[in-house]
Amino acid sequence: DTSMKPIRATLFPGDGIGPEIAESVKQVFSSAEVPIEWEEHFVGDKVDPRTESFLTWESLESVRRNRVGLKGPMATPIGKGHRSLNLTLRKELGLYANVRPCYSLSGYKTRYDNVNLVTIRENTEGEYSGLEHQVVRGVVESLKIITRQASLRVAEYAFHYAKTNGRERVSAIHKANIMRKTDGLFLKCCREVAEKYPEITYEEVIIDNCCMMLTKNPSLFDVLVMPNLYGDIISDLCAGLIGGLGLTPSCNIGEGGIALAEAVHGSAPDIAGKNLANPTALLLSSVMMLRHLGLNDKADRIHNAVLETIAEGKYRTGDLGGSASTTDFTKAICDHL
Amino acid sequence: DTSMKPIRATLFPGDGIGPEIAESVKQVFSSAEVPIEWEEHFVGDKVDPRTESFLTWESLESVRRNRVGLKGPMATPIGKGHRSLNLTLRKELGLYANVRPCYSLSGYKTRYDNVNLVTIRENTEGEYSGLEHQVVRGVVESLKIITRQASLRVAEYAFHYAKTNGRERVSAIHKANIMRKTDGLFLKCCREVAEKYPEITYEEVIIDNCCMMLTKNPSLFDVLVMPNLYGDIISDLCAGLIGGLGLTPSCNIGEGGIALAEAVHGSAPDIAGKNLANPTALLLSSVMMLRHLGLNDKADRIHNAVLETIAEGKYRTGDLGGSASTTDFTKAICDHL
Ligand SMILES: CC(C)[C@H](C(=O)O)[C@@H](O)C(=O)O
Ligand SMILES: CC(C)[C@H](C(=O)O)[C@@H](O)C(=O)O
Repeated sequence: DTSMKPIRATLFPGDGIGPEIAESVKQVFSSAEVPIEWEEHFVGDKVDPRTESFLTWESLESVRRNRVGLKGPMATPIGKGHRSLNLTLRKELGLYANVRPCYSLSGYKTRYDNVNLVTIRENTEGEYSGLEHQVVRGVVESLKIITRQASLRVAEYAFHYAKTNGRERVSAIHKANIMRKTDGLFLKCCREVAEKYPEITYEEVIIDNCCMMLTKNPSLFDVLVMPNLYGDIISDLCAGLIGGLGLTPSCNIGEGGIALAEAVHGSAPDIAGKNLANPTALLLSSVMMLRHLGLNDKADRIHNAVLETIAEGKYRTGDLGGSASTTDFTKAICDHL
Repeated sequence: DTSMKPIRATLFPGDGIGPEIAESVKQVFSSAEVPIEWEEHFVGDKVDPRTESFLTWESLESVRRNRVGLKGPMATPIGKGHRSLNLTLRKELGLYANVRPCYSLSGYKTRYDNVNLVTIRENTEGEYSGLEHQVVRGVVESLKIITRQASLRVAEYAFHYAKTNGRERVSAIHKANIMRKTDGLFLKCCREVAEKYPEITYEEVIIDNCCMMLTKNPSLFDVLVMPNLYGDIISDLCAGLIGGLGLTPSCNIGEGGIALAEAVHGSAPDIAGKNLANPTALLLSSVMMLRHLGLNDKADRIHNAVLETIAEGKYRTGDLGGSASTTDFTKAICDHL
């Protein structure tokens, strides 16, 4: 429907295969007549030729102004002292929750059928505090920080997500039998929020046991909420169940309703520029962005076209055992729209 | 061979199903004429009726004197301030490495075939330091401690284990891209030790990626060495691949050559005393204890008898989908010896 007023969204193609898979999203969006106008900014491991900066103020302002964006993979600049660009974006934009739905793609067979869960990761603190020091020679320590504020915020997001997405259960993942104070506070906050959502079943699962249950029977889980590092670990584990990070979407939720959707796989420098990359994770992430904007019809159409193309199996990229190029696969998706 | 001088070993049957599965080990050992004389001590969640203590000095001394032992599951005593008995044993006995071989059991089908790896977990420090405090209201922190000494010790154990067990590769699992100092020190120690073992391939794998690789293709791994919490998480994940903690053995290596083999599953109070428990994990752990003692023939015989009984499928306990009792299953193993 071209009569819609276009919505501006920020696009960070990123490094390595980023530009190619971003191109794929642009093509699919234009085929599907999605009323999005991209505002493209360079953020990545090479300095912007114009600005000599890895990450410009304008790039951040673009997301802050548009409140929605899509990002490809970013490599961390080589050299000492460079903080990961991914972490910098999380920090600067206050991206407090990382949402990763993980579902079996019909037509792409793995050892697991019917995986259908969502991990919601606290994205700002915990083991990612960056606070570390050497106590004496040969003895170092890292601080894990858990705050009531960040824990309540992500718990609130998880329960709200569960409720508005027709999910029935929220599992808080923790190791409070060992880290009684930090993970204990996280659980306490989850319990407080759970009380406000009597229609959602709440449970607590110790992380080691959770990983065992996930490999044995992932259908036991629905929405999982957890501190930063556990979310990092468990979301990758779950991605492995359905085929890997090339297939799983992600979206970061920030202060003031910002949503930055993101492909969380690497920049794959070995195949960059060769028209071999699989754009699925970025496409499905863009679908999350569309849902965030309430463009559900467009989201459904693109989502189905991607899944049908993979299921049909005629055009698949190398990572899925096929020999299609990025552009072949993209064209096939556009044909399915 | 009954002419061997018996070797004394400590036995902690533990809580819940512990006494039943310990009984199974005793029966299998006596059928196989293993020259072990058990020194049984009570450690568990009820106070010893004679000593009014959860964990007596004599129990610890028994392991220190015998240098080998076998333990069943122990529940943590109810009530505030009780430290986990498992952690107390690790600390008191200096059990610095937790070794968990994880292999597909032929005859018990899961989604994975040919899993054959060993996780070696640093067992004394890291996220298990117990150092936590509230900074201000609503802000708590936990300290992760990594020392050069403990990291070198477990790395040395892992490479030595790999070499003496015909393994080819050691993977150090870490999150040094985030915890640069703590996990960085751990990796530095692993690299130092790796230099002394040029015949063993050494690699470093980030924990999130490791979990994805494990769920996609566990045969990529051989020996994995890692800090405490990662070991806790990954060993359970791996156990899930082959059927769960009821099937995976474990052995803790301590100062002065102490070996305390251990079933790491829970005490399963719901089925305790009902002759329903699966003794496999404790039996396979006892096999690790026998290998530690150099009793390889006995170890092989028991190992094969357990695996054959499971593969035959006639006598299986409820957790494996059968209806055999603990004693039926144990008798079947003895018949296979
Ligand atoms: C690249 C790395 C810093 C990052 C993380 O650890 O969060 C990545 O693994 C992720 O999950 O987004
Ligand atoms: C019971 C618990 C304290 C323990 C741990 O976290 O180490 C357990 O999970 C294990 O792996 O032995």
